[in-house]
Amino acid sequence: MDDVARLANVSRQTVSNVLNAPTVVRPETRERVEQAISTLGYRPHASARRLRTRVSSTIGIRLDPITNGISGGILDRFLHALVEQADERGMRVMLFTASDTDDEVAQFRRLRDGADVDAFVITATTYDDPRIEWLANEKVPFVSFGRPWGVENIDDPDRLWVDVDGQAGVHEATRDLIDRGLRRIGYLGWPAGSGTGDDRRTGWELAMSEAFGLGPADLAALITTTTEGVARARIAIEALFQAGTELEGLVCASDSLALGAMMAAREAGLTHFPIMGFDNTPVAQAVGLSSVDQRLGLVAQGTLELLMGATGRRVLPHGTGTEDPRHRLITPQLVVRRSSHLALVEEAGGTRTGDHERKEEANE
Amino acid sequence: MDDVARLANVSRQTVSNVLNAPTVVRPETRERVEQAISTLGYRPHASARRLRTRVSSTIGIRLDPITNGISGGILDRFLHALVEQADERGMRVMLFTASDTDDEVAQFRRLRDGADVDAFVITATTYDDPRIEWLANEKVPFVSFGRPWGVENIDDPDRLWVDVDGQAGVHEATRDLIDRGLRRIGYLGWPAGSGTGDDRRTGWELAMSEAFGLGPADLAALITTTTEGVARARIAIEALFQAGTELEGLVCASDSLALGAMMAAREAGLTHFPIMGFDNTPVAQAVGLSSVDQRLGLVAQGTLELLMGATGRRVLPHGTGTEDPRHRLITPQLVVRRSSHLALVEEAGGTRTGDHERKEEANE
Repeated sequence: MDDVARLANVSRQTVSNVLNAPTVVRPETRERVEQAISTLGYRPHASARRLRTRVSSTIGIRLDPITNGISGGILDRFLHALVEQADERGMRVMLFTASDTDDEVAQFRRLRDGADVDAFVITATTYDDPRIEWLANEKVPFVSFGRPWGVENIDDPDRLWVDVDGQAGVHEATRDLIDRGLRRIGYLGWPAGSGTGDDRRTGWELAMSEAFGLGPADLAALITTTTEGVARARIAIEALFQAGTELEGLVCASDSLALGAMMAAREAGLTHFPIMGFDNTPVAQAVGLSSVDQRLGLVAQGTLELLMGATGRRVLPHGTGTEDPRHRLITPQLVVRRSSHLALVEEAGGTRTGDHERKEEANE
Repeated sequence: MDDVARLANVSRQTVSNVLNAPTVVRPETRERVEQAISTLGYRPHASARRLRTRVSSTIGIRLDPITNGISGGILDRFLHALVEQADERGMRVMLFTASDTDDEVAQFRRLRDGADVDAFVITATTYDDPRIEWLANEKVPFVSFGRPWGVENIDDPDRLWVDVDGQAGVHEATRDLIDRGLRRIGYLGWPAGSGTGDDRRTGWELAMSEAFGLGPADLAALITTTTEGVARARIAIEALFQAGTELEGLVCASDSLALGAMMAAREAGLTHFPIMGFDNTPVAQAVGLSSVDQRLGLVAQGTLELLMGATGRRVLPHGTGTEDPRHRLITPQLVVRRSSHLALVEEAGGTRTGDHERKEEANE
């Protein structure tokens, strides 16, 4: 750095400013210093700078060993968007793994202590999530993708979050079927008790109550629950058809559930049984399943805005500087394909797909 | 560190050994030092250690903004396996993005200069890949997932690689159809000129030549090519059926191509048209498509063995210490589902699936 200062005929501090706060240096001076840096091949040492500034320009996120079937790709797609947008702010993303939530907290501690990361993004939040408690108590900057379910104040500056409004998405999907003239629209979801699952089911409940004035008992009669999985959904809906259900269509909590339902409907020989999925996975696109898209680009954008401000290039200290609102609730978008409006057997290959889907598929 | 040494009644060097090379310290001493570290809440500073040792315990890998349709998930699944297995060796994974290959090399330089990573993993290699040239010239430890296509010496110690033997996988898939009594088995692949695509096609060519003594002209008549994508594959195979092809079955270069072919076959009303995919994506599992699995856990294992030795916990210097062979060619595994042996219309929902598939789907 001394050599650079000598060659550019400036002070050591000016060289440091060009590297760390270039806007405070006059353009002509900055250019001269940059020229000298280039001539001498000077490489500022990142670890030394990190040690001095405690800034690593890195965001940590846990990546689990196994992707969870069809819908597991959601977090991967979020990760791609996050890495891309973080790069535009000069940030990188560090991946680690953990065997459970306690282990994840242990990893937080290790990475925080080593100044390896400036902030964390956590995913798959649960009611009373212990990770959120630890990060908030330790004042480590973080954003959760997923609401801090069960916390009363959703604008708590200690608990920044971004999430997708699943209720709004499922409501839109249900409305779409209602607007097509369907009345007995069922819901296929997960057992009650998960924040995400309960939220999505509420969207269907609201749309059905608004349109037809259904009460709790009417609604309950239209709900089928199963744990996540194509095969389990198929079995559940097969049983429904064998029992002679009067359902006219189905809104599902995930694309996996929707795909199982599509198979069961086809097996039962139903040619008109509209189905809606959730997540807009590549599978939905491939088989023509209408589905709710989470808009993960906006989720990534919201995450970085909460961590770094609207245009900043540094993570803000925990609990400071973030403008209201202290969260981002992204409204998802229904992508309509053939599963929700044409005969299933046709959708599966009996007719050509429309221009809309052709265009989508051409983007693969 | 002085306080720890004093409390444990050992030298400063012993404390350092406990932290950096614990196996050289006697168990009783180690325990006493660890007790002192815990009592005093001593935190060794990772950035300082990195600066001293130039070891970051981090592997860098580029993650592109967009996953490429159905098969794009392959690299995500590799990433999950890599992060998991790297963790077992005390390593983490750093993600960055790049707009093109030149930009990726610029990122290599930045991360190398800052001692941010110890090694790189590169993916999607091409003929004469400039990234490989740069990394080899600069003696930066790296492994490519994908052969250095076009290089003569595949055991070049400067160019470590791990790859999946696509030729063997497609050969096995083709043999499987031949063993079921099929003879006119077509191939649906990408235009010639990509290392991966040409390699997979060769597997089909070999199996067909071995079984039926077909020459180049016979083989060429059975090949259909299209760029990647469900819709494009569907159009290509629709055209084939409309022209009155005599094909009895089809081996495909990817699950996307296979899915398009399945749709075209169903549209044409074919009830017996076996199809094989490649990649064993979640889509293949969901729709009952037989497919070749790349065994990405073994790919990740091979990557780390080449970088760190069989059981090591540090990246080895470039070009040294790696035992022969200096690459890993993973034999993939055919996963047989209904698409390759039962009537397609049945596969799509006309019968219940067999026990085998039920078991697979239950694992989602």
